[in-house]
Amino acid sequence: MKQEVEDWFKSFQDSLCGMLEIADGGTTFREDVWQHHESGGGRSRVIENGKVLEKGGVNFSVVAGSLPDKAAAALLMPANQFFATGVSVVLHPQSPMVPITHMNVRYFEAGNGMAWFGGGIDLTPIYINVKQAADFHRLLKSVCDKHHVSYYPEFKSWADEYFYIPHRQETRGVGGIFFDRLQANAEISLEQRFAFVKEVASAFGPWYTAIMTENRGLPYQQPQKEWQYLRRGRYAEFNLVNDRGTKFGLETGGRTESILMSLPPQAAWVYNFKPEPNSAEEETLNYLKKDIDWVNK
Amino acid sequence: MKQEVEDWFKSFQDSLCGMLEIADGGTTFREDVWQHHESGGGRSRVIENGKVLEKGGVNFSVVAGSLPDKAAAALLMPANQFFATGVSVVLHPQSPMVPITHMNVRYFEAGNGMAWFGGGIDLTPIYINVKQAADFHRLLKSVCDKHHVSYYPEFKSWADEYFYIPHRQETRGVGGIFFDRLQANAEISLEQRFAFVKEVASAFGPWYTAIMTENRGLPYQQPQKEWQYLRRGRYAEFNLVNDRGTKFGLETGGRTESILMSLPPQAAWVYNFKPEPNSAEEETLNYLKKDIDWVNK
Repeated sequence: MKQEVEDWFKSFQDSLCGMLEIADGGTTFREDVWQHHESGGGRSRVIENGKVLEKGGVNFSVVAGSLPDKAAAALLMPANQFFATGVSVVLHPQSPMVPITHMNVRYFEAGNGMAWFGGGIDLTPIYINVKQAADFHRLLKSVCDKHHVSYYPEFKSWADEYFYIPHRQETRGVGGIFFDRLQANAEISLEQRFAFVKEVASAFGPWYTAIMTENRGLPYQQPQKEWQYLRRGRYAEFNLVNDRGTKFGLETGGRTESILMSLPPQAAWVYNFKPEPNSAEEETLNYLKKDIDWVNK
Repeated sequence: MKQEVEDWFKSFQDSLCGMLEIADGGTTFREDVWQHHESGGGRSRVIENGKVLEKGGVNFSVVAGSLPDKAAAALLMPANQFFATGVSVVLHPQSPMVPITHMNVRYFEAGNGMAWFGGGIDLTPIYINVKQAADFHRLLKSVCDKHHVSYYPEFKSWADEYFYIPHRQETRGVGGIFFDRLQANAEISLEQRFAFVKEVASAFGPWYTAIMTENRGLPYQQPQKEWQYLRRGRYAEFNLVNDRGTKFGLETGGRTESILMSLPPQAAWVYNFKPEPNSAEEETLNYLKKDIDWVNK
């Protein structure tokens, strides 16, 4: 399974980068190959100053080794020996009219034979487009429903919880799906879990490149850029304060530049900023809440 | 003691804001008075878009209450009942030629009668000025030496440790002094600790406003602005990932906007940025290290 997953993740990285380059039309990804200090390494691919994408990363990594007891406990790992591989994607567009997005697929094996998949996709609009957000959730639901009726409601709620910024009392964006520790069970085999993960990953590129194409030409002015900088500040706050993946990576000595490729190209903080009543900014804020029934919007 | 410290901190906030407004010459602080959900509150004073200061805060707070066991343990508090008052200052100048600075003085009392002071000042140049950094440390040493010969070496090392970003393997700036839990002991009374804290705080305004005046007219171009944005990104990383004060404030439900006034007005992240060899940027990076003997530079 390990080799099969690793190979698929690598080819997914290749095809996604290709799709994004075509949709951007301005520049290409550059690659850094790196080695982990214990065993394994990665291929970080970063795009900067494209026509649509101002900064983004599509990172593949595979690491095997032995975790210190404390780190194993923090990760709820049932054994110290582990194998982990994954692809992480964060895309920060130039235009405030094109939403930020993030996706991740990952596979773990513990030394005692336990194995599981995790992953998800979520969307962070600078300006809410209710129809695009609802269409996004409907797409996720259709992918999930093919595999298990419990997937979408469960993984949608999980994303609402995970991508929440407690100190701001707001969600990072309009959510999506988040799942972790999908093991084989009496009903679902590990191969079926993998088939689900592949379908989630494969849905990402066509969906997001369509949004890039649809929104790239929308007009905006400096006030919309300023709001984008503030929302990117919130994105940085979530990633640096709340994101467990980032925290784990930094604390266990992962490659800092690959982990923090998720940070925005340019961000701002203004003291106690409040959007104008009934503005597009306020409307967006009103949608940064858990438990919105996006599928039926 | 509580009332005396609280009164002094408030008058210090007043006089420091006055000094900074005169040195800036462009705008004034605006004040938000807020209440803590348990008991106490604060006076947050924020300056934005001044001639020299792009964004800064001089915040006074006083809080008394009862900590949950877990929070008390995290703070190494010997009892749940506590009283805390302090002034926190972070100043982000417009010009990359004027360094960022931070200072804090604080006083705690625990329900069991234990009481202590903490505080410090540190300096974060965007471009190192070796003479200014050395003069800053010499000033701190002269303030410390009047009170105890152990203070400067001990508190300088403490700042080196505290203002360190492990995932970047660099210090936030050129350090300064940091101290905490200065209780009365056989040699030094609590009144003497307070006298030291007052002298540290009183040194801050005259020193930093002199630097504002000296550096505000220095020329710079867009590449220097870009480097400033990157260094501010590091400042945000430290504050959000590593700073224990920020973490404690956010986790215990402090006022988010007052805590995060420390974040820069505009920051940037560029993937794997490396300064040109022998550039002013590289020279600055080379000084972002622990254990530099600044006093003898």
